[in-house]
Amino acid sequence: MALQIENNEVAVFAIGGLGEIGKNMYVIQYQNELVIVDAGIKFPEDDLLGIDYVISDYQYLIENQEKIKGLFITHGHEDHIGGIPFLLQKIPNIPIYAGPLATALIKGKLEERGLLNSTEIHVLQEDDFVKFNYLSVEFFRTTHSIPDTLGIAVHTPQGVIIQTGDYKFDFTPVGNQPAPNLQKMAKLGSEGVLLLLSDSTNAEIPTFSKSERFVGNTIHQIVERIDGRIIFATFASNLYRVSQAIDAAMQNGRKVAVFGRSMEQTIVNGRELGYLNIPDSELVDAAEINKLPANKVLLLCTGSQGEPMAALSRIANGTHRQIAIQPGDTVIFSSNPIPGNTISVNHLINSLEEAGANVIHGKINNIHASGHGGQEEQKLMLRLIQPKYFMPIHGEYRMLKIHTGLAQLCGVPKENTFIFDNGDVLALTANSARKAGHVPAGDVYIDSNGIDDIDNIVIHDRQMLSEEGLVIVVATIDYHKGLVLSGPDILSRGFVYMRESSTLISQAQKRAFHVIKNYLDQRNEEKTPKNRNFESILKRDIIDDLQEFLYRKTERHPVILPMIISTKV
Amino acid sequence: MALQIENNEVAVFAIGGLGEIGKNMYVIQYQNELVIVDAGIKFPEDDLLGIDYVISDYQYLIENQEKIKGLFITHGHEDHIGGIPFLLQKIPNIPIYAGPLATALIKGKLEERGLLNSTEIHVLQEDDFVKFNYLSVEFFRTTHSIPDTLGIAVHTPQGVIIQTGDYKFDFTPVGNQPAPNLQKMAKLGSEGVLLLLSDSTNAEIPTFSKSERFVGNTIHQIVERIDGRIIFATFASNLYRVSQAIDAAMQNGRKVAVFGRSMEQTIVNGRELGYLNIPDSELVDAAEINKLPANKVLLLCTGSQGEPMAALSRIANGTHRQIAIQPGDTVIFSSNPIPGNTISVNHLINSLEEAGANVIHGKINNIHASGHGGQEEQKLMLRLIQPKYFMPIHGEYRMLKIHTGLAQLCGVPKENTFIFDNGDVLALTANSARKAGHVPAGDVYIDSNGIDDIDNIVIHDRQMLSEEGLVIVVATIDYHKGLVLSGPDILSRGFVYMRESSTLISQAQKRAFHVIKNYLDQRNEEKTPKNRNFESILKRDIIDDLQEFLYRKTERHPVILPMIISTKV
Repeated sequence: MALQIENNEVAVFAIGGLGEIGKNMYVIQYQNELVIVDAGIKFPEDDLLGIDYVISDYQYLIENQEKIKGLFITHGHEDHIGGIPFLLQKIPNIPIYAGPLATALIKGKLEERGLLNSTEIHVLQEDDFVKFNYLSVEFFRTTHSIPDTLGIAVHTPQGVIIQTGDYKFDFTPVGNQPAPNLQKMAKLGSEGVLLLLSDSTNAEIPTFSKSERFVGNTIHQIVERIDGRIIFATFASNLYRVSQAIDAAMQNGRKVAVFGRSMEQTIVNGRELGYLNIPDSELVDAAEINKLPANKVLLLCTGSQGEPMAALSRIANGTHRQIAIQPGDTVIFSSNPIPGNTISVNHLINSLEEAGANVIHGKINNIHASGHGGQEEQKLMLRLIQPKYFMPIHGEYRMLKIHTGLAQLCGVPKENTFIFDNGDVLALTANSARKAGHVPAGDVYIDSNGIDDIDNIVIHDRQMLSEEGLVIVVATIDYHKGLVLSGPDILSRGFVYMRESSTLISQAQKRAFHVIKNYLDQRNEEKTPKNRNFESILKRDIIDDLQEFLYRKTERHPVILPMIISTKV
Repeated sequence: MALQIENNEVAVFAIGGLGEIGKNMYVIQYQNELVIVDAGIKFPEDDLLGIDYVISDYQYLIENQEKIKGLFITHGHEDHIGGIPFLLQKIPNIPIYAGPLATALIKGKLEERGLLNSTEIHVLQEDDFVKFNYLSVEFFRTTHSIPDTLGIAVHTPQGVIIQTGDYKFDFTPVGNQPAPNLQKMAKLGSEGVLLLLSDSTNAEIPTFSKSERFVGNTIHQIVERIDGRIIFATFASNLYRVSQAIDAAMQNGRKVAVFGRSMEQTIVNGRELGYLNIPDSELVDAAEINKLPANKVLLLCTGSQGEPMAALSRIANGTHRQIAIQPGDTVIFSSNPIPGNTISVNHLINSLEEAGANVIHGKINNIHASGHGGQEEQKLMLRLIQPKYFMPIHGEYRMLKIHTGLAQLCGVPKENTFIFDNGDVLALTANSARKAGHVPAGDVYIDSNGIDDIDNIVIHDRQMLSEEGLVIVVATIDYHKGLVLSGPDILSRGFVYMRESSTLISQAQKRAFHVIKNYLDQRNEEKTPKNRNFESILKRDIIDDLQEFLYRKTERHPVILPMIISTKV
């Protein structure tokens, strides 16, 4: 597959990340060199049943793998690094460049899948400059809800292309993290930037996001005034938040116990990289908790999004091996529910309160701040970088649209802004930009732990099954004699109760019998050649008849599954 | 007067602007060169009766006038340029450097007082670089509630000193005004800044100020839906706001009439400098208004702060020569009351509504945005400039204090921050900063149009008069004979009604008579030398006696003014 661009044009496109929140993956290519920025997963929406992850379609990269110079990682969130194991299984040996924390997280992933030695990982520092033949890459510090976040500037023969990564402008970051490097961004802006690809997540928020430090103050105030046990739930990847919860615990004489595998990993990574400052003496394990007074412990755990298998859900519903809610416990959700998770989070809060806990959550207590900048920060980025062309990334359509409006207000001419879909190719020279065709960029579904791609029909079936139920029709047939030897029997699951609907089922049975009988009679009369498709034609006939009949009777569309057992001819 | 600093130290101090909002005036001096930044006035608070302006004490500048290289103006608001005529009356020939709009406003002031030729005014552009022997001055664009706002960077042998002027970060300014020059600020920051003096006005506001463009959208929406006449009141100096009101009027087929001298001047300046785009055909005068349908006019006027002599107050109370409120009128206050003016603004709103108008004001309709940046913008400035030392300016103590806290959160060590008073001198080298004495920096009161300084005793008397009233005691005396020839008569104003208090007054009369008689008797008996002070001793005696008496009877402290007429000796 070749791009439909001129030899002097730079191609820029997303394989994932446009029109969605998730699976970020962007490609910048000049002639026979391309660099990839990020390789994320998306968590499936509720209607993707049994799907664990969604990744991007790597077909273009597979076909052009000899051109790949490197995969550059903006930061260690799943929607930016989660796809790496799947990508490396398809294309080994892509050199990876990532900051210290992202590197630790990626290594963890690769180790789990036995891929640790499949490629080299270069640990990036902000001042690094990675040079290829045509392309070279440099970096600038940003701030986000995870440490070691970088914006990426790719120097091409036609100009500089900047991908911001996820960012907010947190001028007072927590701990020893540096503030955003405004000077480097402004310098790139002064020298001239051809294209800016900028994070659109909070384009609908007209303000400036609160600093993580502001959240820290609230956490301290809350922890200070609580008497019983504290269960503190947040995103494991938000090392800032974890660090502030630990600080608050230590300042109030509470030992910290950690629950949830990713939270445990965060503590290990955070201590190794120097982002968490907690002596061994302050950490306790589950067994020790019950020996300490309630006001001397803080439990740090995963599951703030209501994930059913995470520590907090298991604690709430009494299935956790070591911890159960006891009256007087306070559970702090230092997070906001991601839109798709609102219902499960609400359910979790109800369970916790029913079990006797007090629950403090983000919306009512200022104990969460977004990791993404609002409009004022998006405008600040635009004014620092002063790009000639602009493409909003990392967002659903309405966010991309608002962000494009901001770019125009900040001096980018309307005709220089591009709201693209995944796969749409932008072809650039120093003085021109045009849409130039499309590369494959569909969704690829990952089931359980495998890499097998699940296609859309499977997902559709699962959706039908979950919403409408299943009707199985079984019959044994002797094609030669034109006889129905047994059945048709009808089984259903998730459709109607058999007992209550015996009339419906026996009617369906009769209809199925007539369909089969008619088919066999016609077939014998016509003396048509016995083609290989006879079974599928019969099945189609059964499905069509029963579908119409059952819908007329019940207004439902169950999945109808005929099983025809034919006697050996 | 000499500064108490070493020869290699740079001195930085405020003659006005610290611990207050108003009369900004800052001095940066190295050896025999000094530059002044701004020369503002302050409007008096309510307890300064009969005082029109407060200016700074220019004594240090007068004594060191041969060192003054120039007066650099950040922008054209009164609290930054209002003192210039008074300064030039004391020290002519100070070269003034100011942006285009500030220049127009300063020229207007100087012309009024016949001072236009007393000095040279250089019209600044952002890229100008003004070089003296030791000091040189450059500029960076900022945004504020008036066009042509500049931050000022003074290069000294010990490092760069930046005074931000008043600023917000408006990334989407109105009309043809440019956005803040982030690149230049970041470049100064990269190269190293010794001291930052930064606007503290909104240090108590934890957010990012709304863009002026946001206000414009609201104005358009409001003007669109109103049927009757619109009276639009705002700060005359806010050319952005004026321009948006005019745009909204024109887009809705309304002609614009202008009321108030400063508003008229704004229209003239704005059109001359290209900031206002309104053809003659869209402007109408007062006579024409009454010939047009109500929904075809917008009256633009001064007085949004409830100033009693401004156009809006006169319209409200029926004393305007040409315009009276009529039912169906809508009055828009595109402003927030300055704290001291809240009562008069509320009174004005009441009057307008009683006269039949609908009133829309800032707090309830998003039709005002502050011209000063909130905390996020103050932090942005700190992170762009990255100063070694920090001194908050332009604010009352509590604002300076919060701003200093922000500086510490943004990486300026606590011992490198200085909350100073007017007159306190900061002595700097590249590696040190210390407080080094004090220069005079008291308040100087300006009465009516004169330049005569009014001292504090006068103000105190006016305050007493206004709050407690006046009692005059008149007596004619023959000292030789020791006789009271007539009186004492008692007159009072603002103290008690004579008629209702005839007993009180006649008692006071008797007491005064006795004081005088006793004095004369003792004087004759003692045969003391007739010294020149006899009258003031007698007056003091009368005041002491009546003060005690009247306070006992009324709990008031009227100003007591004895007038002793003595027959010629």
